[in-house]
Amino acid sequence: MNKPSIPKGTRDFSPVEMAKRNYIFNTIREVYGLYGFRQIETPAMENLSTLMGKYGEEGDKLLFKILNSGDFLRGIDAGVLADGATGRLAAQLCEKGLRYDLTVPFARYVVQHRDELQMPFKRYQIQPVWRADRPQKGRYREFYQCDADVVGSDSLLSEVELMQIIDTVFTRFGIRVSILINNRKILTGMANHIGQPDKIVEITTAIDKLDKIGIDNVRAELADSGVTPEAIAKLEPLFQISGDNDSQLAAIAAMLADDEIGTKGVEEVRFVLNTLKSLMVNGQCSMANEVALDLTLARGLNYYTGCIFEVKALDVEIGSITGGGRYDNLTGIFGMPGLSGVGISFGADRIYDVLNQLDLYPQDAIQGAQVLFINFGQAEAARSMQVATQLRQAGIAAEVYPDSAKMKKQMSYANTLGVPYVVLIGESELQSGLVSLKDMNTGQQQQLTAEEVIEKLKPSH
Amino acid sequence: MNKPSIPKGTRDFSPVEMAKRNYIFNTIREVYGLYGFRQIETPAMENLSTLMGKYGEEGDKLLFKILNSGDFLRGIDAGVLADGATGRLAAQLCEKGLRYDLTVPFARYVVQHRDELQMPFKRYQIQPVWRADRPQKGRYREFYQCDADVVGSDSLLSEVELMQIIDTVFTRFGIRVSILINNRKILTGMANHIGQPDKIVEITTAIDKLDKIGIDNVRAELADSGVTPEAIAKLEPLFQISGDNDSQLAAIAAMLADDEIGTKGVEEVRFVLNTLKSLMVNGQCSMANEVALDLTLARGLNYYTGCIFEVKALDVEIGSITGGGRYDNLTGIFGMPGLSGVGISFGADRIYDVLNQLDLYPQDAIQGAQVLFINFGQAEAARSMQVATQLRQAGIAAEVYPDSAKMKKQMSYANTLGVPYVVLIGESELQSGLVSLKDMNTGQQQQLTAEEVIEKLKPSH
Repeated sequence: MNKPSIPKGTRDFSPVEMAKRNYIFNTIREVYGLYGFRQIETPAMENLSTLMGKYGEEGDKLLFKILNSGDFLRGIDAGVLADGATGRLAAQLCEKGLRYDLTVPFARYVVQHRDELQMPFKRYQIQPVWRADRPQKGRYREFYQCDADVVGSDSLLSEVELMQIIDTVFTRFGIRVSILINNRKILTGMANHIGQPDKIVEITTAIDKLDKIGIDNVRAELADSGVTPEAIAKLEPLFQISGDNDSQLAAIAAMLADDEIGTKGVEEVRFVLNTLKSLMVNGQCSMANEVALDLTLARGLNYYTGCIFEVKALDVEIGSITGGGRYDNLTGIFGMPGLSGVGISFGADRIYDVLNQLDLYPQDAIQGAQVLFINFGQAEAARSMQVATQLRQAGIAAEVYPDSAKMKKQMSYANTLGVPYVVLIGESELQSGLVSLKDMNTGQQQQLTAEEVIEKLKPSH
Repeated sequence: MNKPSIPKGTRDFSPVEMAKRNYIFNTIREVYGLYGFRQIETPAMENLSTLMGKYGEEGDKLLFKILNSGDFLRGIDAGVLADGATGRLAAQLCEKGLRYDLTVPFARYVVQHRDELQMPFKRYQIQPVWRADRPQKGRYREFYQCDADVVGSDSLLSEVELMQIIDTVFTRFGIRVSILINNRKILTGMANHIGQPDKIVEITTAIDKLDKIGIDNVRAELADSGVTPEAIAKLEPLFQISGDNDSQLAAIAAMLADDEIGTKGVEEVRFVLNTLKSLMVNGQCSMANEVALDLTLARGLNYYTGCIFEVKALDVEIGSITGGGRYDNLTGIFGMPGLSGVGISFGADRIYDVLNQLDLYPQDAIQGAQVLFINFGQAEAARSMQVATQLRQAGIAAEVYPDSAKMKKQMSYANTLGVPYVVLIGESELQSGLVSLKDMNTGQQQQLTAEEVIEKLKPSH
């Protein structure tokens, strides 16, 4: 019989991988909770009518669709069947699909439960999503998203809190990051300023590449995409803007002084940056990581309407590991227009890779049991079970090896699992009532009472 | 536009529901961890070849199948299409299905990763499963299972530990339970003893109903299902067995003395019960709940081969809330025969209902933020953000209301969310540098420094 396997693009998570992932999710969850965000969950399956048309034509194709139960052919048009038009046929064969992201189900949730929700609604959600993308390195067909959003308020204090959350999470991970901020209104202002509001996508796409391809190539790309020479000339000062946040803000404010929307965007960013700077605790700025204005940052242009953020790790080349922004119309598509909100999403898979590369997982977060009791036979095991029970009551994770296997095998089990302590209860320990505690790192062995073992190993928190 | 909805049989979980569910899952997770069980996760989608044929014909129909991506009609036999045989067609339209339980994916995992696994392998898994069952009260199409298994050892110490885990989990919940134990070998022994080994299913089904329908009806049912009058007569002593575990064990041991398998079953149960009794800590039995031999208990007859367990809540009528047992051939179906193991599964949805009915959720497990800062305007909010940051650094969950809305609206937000404390920073507090802390339960209000607030609200652990 062939070894069984799993669908391509999906993953099993081993105990060590799960411990690392739990460390990531628990850290994010804890910080979200500190800021009063509350968790929700939505079903893996949504009605296809909820999902279709929300992610563009390409997205529709990448939805996993679930075959209707029972007689799924009943009522299907013979013509559609014979025709082989898979799109139309799929719509008749399937009523449900797997969630593609957490945003659309969240929007659906808000509209469906609008009467029960207390606004502003601060929710977080950590669940898997599924996409029928072509699997490749670092891209999976099942992966987790970790989103937090505040909806029902347009206060910029929410932006400030989300930046604090980002800062706290990465500080806890020990990952040094740069938090980039920009504002969609500034991008709109630029396009207005140079007289080509219709070219905002082309303009932002081109200037987004400034770092990578250089000014000359950006100019060429702008020209190629139909931006006039005059407009490009008016954009030139932008390429010269540099320096710290304040200098950049001053320069872009001057450049966009005539444009109302652009000026609003500048003010929003200024408010967020100034508020963050003012959050001193014990005379120290409470932000550990730099927040940098990046006027070339552009994400989700069709969706975001205010501040946009992106986080880059400083010590690993991996692209964006967190992102988000302000939107003004989350739920319009479900018939509830004008709901403003702001959200962020941590990229768990990339954070996982960064923590691995920098070897930043705390040992106690990823180890299994703290003690293994070696099994020397029935009477010894009975006493081991008793002491293990006592340790667990004190909060110490303990295993008793279930079989009186060869000592070598049991020690190899402890080694493979990375158990830091081993307890040996043999005949002499049965007599004395003491136990032998072996430190697997140093090799040292001590004769102790059960209470002394507890005192030594008890979790400090 | 119609209000959007979710597929029947699925659920959204609100913040309060999620907090309660997290309390359940975290408790179970923590106890599993104390015993050295380690978490794994498997993909939501499995190859249909992994799932089909594992749950009987009815189960095959209840699998959610995922339509192949892209041109799913390519290569499909026109005859099969025209024919309308949905079973054969579904197999061609779909390669993948959603996981139906955690056992089959676990078996698949063990075989697929056999070379990486350290035996005995103690794993737990808490993930949703999906079944196209007809939805009804308490039965959902998406629900979580919480399984723990030890595989690769036939030591009865694993049974003992699983009973301890059950006891610890329900003790932490504050739910009083009765843990019922029996052994498949005892059931086999009975069928052998009365000379009808082929009737084991009928016999156990009938005696399982003893409590509900009485002896006479059990006799009638046995006769109806083809058990001979002589065999029924030989079964009579079983109906008379009563008393504590020791008396019952003595009686069934005498009855099955001639039968090797039955006697083995009695010895296994005796070992587990005696070992549990011997686990004294500080002179007290460490088990808080009763473990009772129930000779009529029968579950998963085709699967279990040794001890079987079931847990019933004592203060709520709800049926089994946890179950499990010993099996000898988890992975045979994937070509790896002879792997013994023992496992349990907590019924999270029923435990949720029991905790609700008995009102046993601890307040701090289900509340959101501990403090809400009322927003009186820009300067006051800036100071609030600063104090809130200080509180969070001390581990206190704090929210700042993002808008300077009417006081009444902000207080109603605090009330609805059950926030226990409100901090007010108005003009006079801006002057004094103090904050007003209001206890929402007593209504009392105090002027304190930020440090005093932290001292008062700091989590004790």
